[in-house]
Amino acid sequence: MAKELKGLTKRSDNYSQWYNELVVKADLAEQSPVRGCMVIKPYGYAIWEKMQQQLDKMFKETGVQNAYFPLLIPKSYLCREAEHVEGFAKECAVVTHYRLKNDPNGSGVIVDPDAKLEEEYIIRPTSETIIWGTYRNWIHSYRDLPLLINQWANVMRWEMRTRLFLRTAEFLWQEGHCAHATAEESEARTVQMINLYADFVEKYMAIPVIKGVKSPNERFAGAVNTYTIEAMMQDGKALQSGTSHNLGQNFAKAFDVTFVNKDNKPEYVWANSWGVSTRLMGALIMTHSDDNGLVLPPHLAPIQVVIVPIYKNDEQLKQISEHVQPIVDELKKLGISVKYDDADNRRPGFKFADYELKGVPVRLAIGARDIENGTVEVMRRDTLEKKEEKLEGIAQHVAELLEDIQNNIFEKALKQRESMTRTVETYDEFKEEIEKGGFILAHWDGTTETEELVKAETKATIRCIPLDGDTTPGVCMVTGKPSKQRVIFARSY
Amino acid sequence: MAKELKGLTKRSDNYSQWYNELVVKADLAEQSPVRGCMVIKPYGYAIWEKMQQQLDKMFKETGVQNAYFPLLIPKSYLCREAEHVEGFAKECAVVTHYRLKNDPNGSGVIVDPDAKLEEEYIIRPTSETIIWGTYRNWIHSYRDLPLLINQWANVMRWEMRTRLFLRTAEFLWQEGHCAHATAEESEARTVQMINLYADFVEKYMAIPVIKGVKSPNERFAGAVNTYTIEAMMQDGKALQSGTSHNLGQNFAKAFDVTFVNKDNKPEYVWANSWGVSTRLMGALIMTHSDDNGLVLPPHLAPIQVVIVPIYKNDEQLKQISEHVQPIVDELKKLGISVKYDDADNRRPGFKFADYELKGVPVRLAIGARDIENGTVEVMRRDTLEKKEEKLEGIAQHVAELLEDIQNNIFEKALKQRESMTRTVETYDEFKEEIEKGGFILAHWDGTTETEELVKAETKATIRCIPLDGDTTPGVCMVTGKPSKQRVIFARSY
Repeated sequence: MAKELKGLTKRSDNYSQWYNELVVKADLAEQSPVRGCMVIKPYGYAIWEKMQQQLDKMFKETGVQNAYFPLLIPKSYLCREAEHVEGFAKECAVVTHYRLKNDPNGSGVIVDPDAKLEEEYIIRPTSETIIWGTYRNWIHSYRDLPLLINQWANVMRWEMRTRLFLRTAEFLWQEGHCAHATAEESEARTVQMINLYADFVEKYMAIPVIKGVKSPNERFAGAVNTYTIEAMMQDGKALQSGTSHNLGQNFAKAFDVTFVNKDNKPEYVWANSWGVSTRLMGALIMTHSDDNGLVLPPHLAPIQVVIVPIYKNDEQLKQISEHVQPIVDELKKLGISVKYDDADNRRPGFKFADYELKGVPVRLAIGARDIENGTVEVMRRDTLEKKEEKLEGIAQHVAELLEDIQNNIFEKALKQRESMTRTVETYDEFKEEIEKGGFILAHWDGTTETEELVKAETKATIRCIPLDGDTTPGVCMVTGKPSKQRVIFARSY
Repeated sequence: MAKELKGLTKRSDNYSQWYNELVVKADLAEQSPVRGCMVIKPYGYAIWEKMQQQLDKMFKETGVQNAYFPLLIPKSYLCREAEHVEGFAKECAVVTHYRLKNDPNGSGVIVDPDAKLEEEYIIRPTSETIIWGTYRNWIHSYRDLPLLINQWANVMRWEMRTRLFLRTAEFLWQEGHCAHATAEESEARTVQMINLYADFVEKYMAIPVIKGVKSPNERFAGAVNTYTIEAMMQDGKALQSGTSHNLGQNFAKAFDVTFVNKDNKPEYVWANSWGVSTRLMGALIMTHSDDNGLVLPPHLAPIQVVIVPIYKNDEQLKQISEHVQPIVDELKKLGISVKYDDADNRRPGFKFADYELKGVPVRLAIGARDIENGTVEVMRRDTLEKKEEKLEGIAQHVAELLEDIQNNIFEKALKQRESMTRTVETYDEFKEEIEKGGFILAHWDGTTETEELVKAETKATIRCIPLDGDTTPGVCMVTGKPSKQRVIFARSY
């Protein structure tokens, strides 16, 4: 592993390659034999599970319940909402047959032409259509509303260029689909969920985000408004980290979902949907990690503390182990996940490099002399700083250190983002600044034409119209037309 | 809901129809527009989540880690193991294209013929092939073993006749896939997992099971030995509730997965796989429920206790609510999930019927006079028995009652099974007894021919060769040839 670590490309040499190597070397995920699809390895999956558990808890606290809808979507369903089919039909996996048979001319199996489906199915790229097709039978009266449902599922979009976690043909996600009796209630839920995502990403993933609204051009296919949280990676590129869509009555109309309102009149139901995916794993890796490997936020690290004994013989190991056991117990009592690595087939230096690569937030190293002196060496992964601490009260010290690391990496990412966020007045200035990466705050006239011109000329897109911050009007940097407020431009993943 | 309940068919009139209706009326699941696929509704999914959480905990306690492998399997992978492809090729969903396009002759979309895949993919019916194709790169030395991995996933088998939960084209499950350095270790893990399943099903689902080995004819496609747990439903039919397969070196050979053993020699890896699915939901419903609706084991009930206030006016409701709040708090403190249903748009009688239909284990009803007397009416769902209890200490009483219900429904199911399990000596006797339902213990000569004859003539199959119990040899009831021990015959789901 030490040898493999040596092979990790430096961020400054090639950020993109550094990321690709790190995902594989840290045992998070790898390419599968299926085009564009990944295998999420146990260590990567353990992080995703922690994220899922926390999000699921937060959803349920707002009254959301989980359910499960079919993987396959009848082709005709996709077509019911005009913008939706336009957005998803071009990159979907199509199921056309339901049987294979022995090849009469060979040794393998072939698709059985007699088992052709009357109507093809597509593997869900998102589930609005199948879910609203189902809600039709669930919703009759305002008493059936709101309906607050989420599902954890796999989805598939046949992307041409894929990268582990960031863009894969199959990915894991959650998708919430709420139905409401009024436009106001649906809008409030849409905003509530983007706020929930921002809380989760900032408090658990330690990634600062900017909340905003997408420009019409970047909206979800079928939405009337899309909220987003945007994070900045270490290379200055933006990563869309979660979205919440106000769908208006579009899907209710497409699937004829009406309810009898309090005035006893039929009305179309108001909808929203919201989701985050395994893409967040990419954000997690790219925001905090360094040239030595992963840096994991303590709140999501599968192993928060590793203890490595330094010994010359079995007797020393036995003595150290006896002193370590009560520390392990005490850490566990504090709810901290700890691993005592006394494996004798790997040397301490190897273990150190491996746990650094894996991003374990705190490492304790303890030798025979430490036992004599009542001390222990404590290393924090975020700064790689080592300190000698007293064995007495070490569990409490580690607990505080973990919180300190959590805060520190958030602050570090926030400072990085702030240092790479600039305001520009002219398009010339913009073109110069965008080359340096980061977020550029600029005035925009609100038209798709201008947005597309900027994209074509600079590869930068409008990440969002920020909800918070400066809302002073001005004039568009490109056209000179009026602008309501500055928006954020960036190149993005 | 009361009206709907009235419509529930009685078990004695039509057990099969009773089941179909109950699944829908109790809001567990329903048919979807996708052939043979179900929607799992929030109440049904909440039960499945509780099952998942407990199983996941038990897996992890044995050292298993979760991971995630692709949904799609290249057609050529399926063909690598001869028996495996034979078992699964005839009922699988085949992905042949990756794009739709606008129909030049119409308004909808059609499959784009230019987007035909070079090699078709099938939606996983089970993941041995894709996983062993991946393990090839993960396993090199005995130090990499054992590899103990599980995934929670959706799978698809294009079944012709489907029933909610019991047999659906898409279902949710977990599949464990372990790799070992020796045949003995792999066999030990195979047995460990069938024991774990039996523990889970008996202790949490309150369903007694018989552990046994499948006859060669009923083995998993590609296994050298399949262990099973078999449960008996109220109608006397068997339901296979979990399986654990010793795969020998079959998949290691098919995917060329070798390791260097301790003697420094290359050897094929030893494998096992094991799984349970949403089919268990069917077993849960059919084992305990009655003509009034669901009966849920307290250990898996999403709501364990419901409290219904009986009041004539707002003042009474307020007074009752003040007395109920501390009970709710105390129940929660004991880890019991409780719902106080003070909704004013449904009458108590309606609520009672609804919670009975939903199988809530304990119901407390509390009126103004109860408050005066310091009493509460306690109804247990399993026996429908009502008792007046003192308000003081009610939380502790409910906690004990829940355990009592858990034990009682297990014992009831066990007695039912015992009363419907008989031993026969002759094939004539067998033919008569099998018509009455239940498990028949009979001697069998160990051949597939005899097994298939019995199946063709009586629709009964060998559920398992039991691991525990009588192992006295005898002679086959059909052929008179020697038999090592009695096996269990039954008709099954």
